Amino acid sequence: MAEAATVDYRLANERALVRFVAGALRALGVEAPDAAIVADVLVAADLRGIEAHGVARLVSQDVRRLRDGVMVAKPVVAVVRETPTSIVLDAGNGLGYPVAKRAMERVIEKSREAGTAFGAVRNANHFGIAGYYAMLALEHDMIGIASTNAVRHAPPTFGREIVLGANPLAFAIPAQHEPPFVLDFATTIGIDGVPAPLGGFGIESGGHKGYGLGLLVDILCGVLSGGAFGTQLPGPDDPPQPGKISHFFGAIRIDGFRDAAQFKADMDVELRTFKDSRTSAGHDRVYVAGEIEDEKARFNREHGVPVRGAVWTGLERLAAELGLPFDLA
Amino acid sequence: MAEAATVDYRLANERALVRFVAGALRALGVEAPDAAIVADVLVAADLRGIEAHGVARLVSQDVRRLRDGVMVAKPVVAVVRETPTSIVLDAGNGLGYPVAKRAMERVIEKSREAGTAFGAVRNANHFGIAGYYAMLALEHDMIGIASTNAVRHAPPTFGREIVLGANPLAFAIPAQHEPPFVLDFATTIGIDGVPAPLGGFGIESGGHKGYGLGLLVDILCGVLSGGAFGTQLPGPDDPPQPGKISHFFGAIRIDGFRDAAQFKADMDVELRTFKDSRTSAGHDRVYVAGEIEDEKARFNREHGVPVRGAVWTGLERLAAELGLPFDLA
Repeated sequence: MAEAATVDYRLANERALVRFVAGALRALGVEAPDAAIVADVLVAADLRGIEAHGVARLVSQDVRRLRDGVMVAKPVVAVVRETPTSIVLDAGNGLGYPVAKRAMERVIEKSREAGTAFGAVRNANHFGIAGYYAMLALEHDMIGIASTNAVRHAPPTFGREIVLGANPLAFAIPAQHEPPFVLDFATTIGIDGVPAPLGGFGIESGGHKGYGLGLLVDILCGVLSGGAFGTQLPGPDDPPQPGKISHFFGAIRIDGFRDAAQFKADMDVELRTFKDSRTSAGHDRVYVAGEIEDEKARFNREHGVPVRGAVWTGLERLAAELGLPFDLA
Repeated sequence: MAEAATVDYRLANERALVRFVAGALRALGVEAPDAAIVADVLVAADLRGIEAHGVARLVSQDVRRLRDGVMVAKPVVAVVRETPTSIVLDAGNGLGYPVAKRAMERVIEKSREAGTAFGAVRNANHFGIAGYYAMLALEHDMIGIASTNAVRHAPPTFGREIVLGANPLAFAIPAQHEPPFVLDFATTIGIDGVPAPLGGFGIESGGHKGYGLGLLVDILCGVLSGGAFGTQLPGPDDPPQPGKISHFFGAIRIDGFRDAAQFKADMDVELRTFKDSRTSAGHDRVYVAGEIEDEKARFNREHGVPVRGAVWTGLERLAAELGLPFDLA
């Protein structure tokens, strides 16, 4: 980790960290199966080097929202609509991660039967990294899709009103020997710290396309689920409120198109073509989506999960407050 | 049309233009039903103001490829694989437009039965605007998806080898009174005329995300269909060769998630929220995807299809060569 030189990191044992996070959530009233899912998703983000969506999130957001009663520890999750190829769940303002994982699992089951299926979840909360859910499809030889709308923080192209969330889109596609293709990206970016659509303000670098993708995500999540969308979602300065986030999931069986083994062998060729292509000046590698995260996850699994010093301290304080043992080594 | 002041345009009667294009293709050996589809797709592009994919394309590409025998006028189209939710077609190096339209129609039929379906086409040629096919889903209260890979013209992030095509992605989603949301965009852009991933070179404006989307499209089209992908596709300087382009289509029934009428009413609210949001300095409107094209199509349907002078001359010359009457008024 290059960052380790400039920022204070400590290394946690993966299983100990998962155990602690799950235990803390149980102590806050979350059911054990849900707590286990949250811990798995958060630590997966830290393993993949996406620390903003890792255990840092537990203390800064999830615990606070549970304690303040803004988010429900034991939600009533309802099936709103269901067909052989679709499912809509109402998360009942519970944690986003467990309902998201279960929705994606249902979508995968339906896809196994029907060939492809989609699902949406409404009245939910932050679900961590979208890629986690998309990647659940990989072992089933399916293409996985996951997305979520989010708290508003950026303007649309030619606009100045804050109407767009980071609205990430994730696609996971299996390969044979190569790591899977995992494209997991926010449809906004930060220009000198100011949120803008992917492609930037204006249209010169394609900002209108990024804005279009962000709005697409809000439609697929918020409008399609019958949940909140557009300015019905909270803005960056709004006080904490019940979860109005919506998610969208999909799974497509590869063998509906061609033999999955042949497809995955060709995926190796495709990914290597890009990775082995000639670099531009000042760069020594061309990456494919998901490759850096896969490398980080392999490294961190072996050496330990890097946890920022301030986050470590926050977890330690949480342990004391909840009367839990704290040993992440 | 603001452009009309600077570039020489002539106005064609829509039906006369469609009739002429279809007649020219029939004269070149294309079956009548195929010719009618090509004409409809090309003129639809001109109506929507996307002239690079309009009738200009007929003379510059399609006619030349047919005459040179590079592309087949009467292709043998084969069903490679089919399930209740998927279909793969081999286009037999015929025109892209007819096989693409028929593939999308099959996907819509399957989606009507199953709730959602996808299709792919391989060994095809240029299919015009992706949005045309995605929009076929609209009248069925479905979300339409269309995509294609393309001749390589851009490098990946951190790379200098030309490995990425323009690889457009299109999503069409119906509204009630508002024009539909039609996001139809190349995953590359031109920076001072030099092709780059959406977001630009480097990662500052999200270029790695645009690159990821371009690669995603190449996978969904080329690898999933069992067609050509990556550097198997021709580069910008390669001689004309049989069609190796692949397409990807999808359709999702809205009522698998919620009542379609309620969804479309909410789509009006969503789209108006963005359109009515406050503008940034120097701009007097915030647009939503597909809005400008919809306005142009309405205007051009009423006033005539603008055809660039040089294209008009090319069509006139083609008429003379084929011994066809030429009256587009």
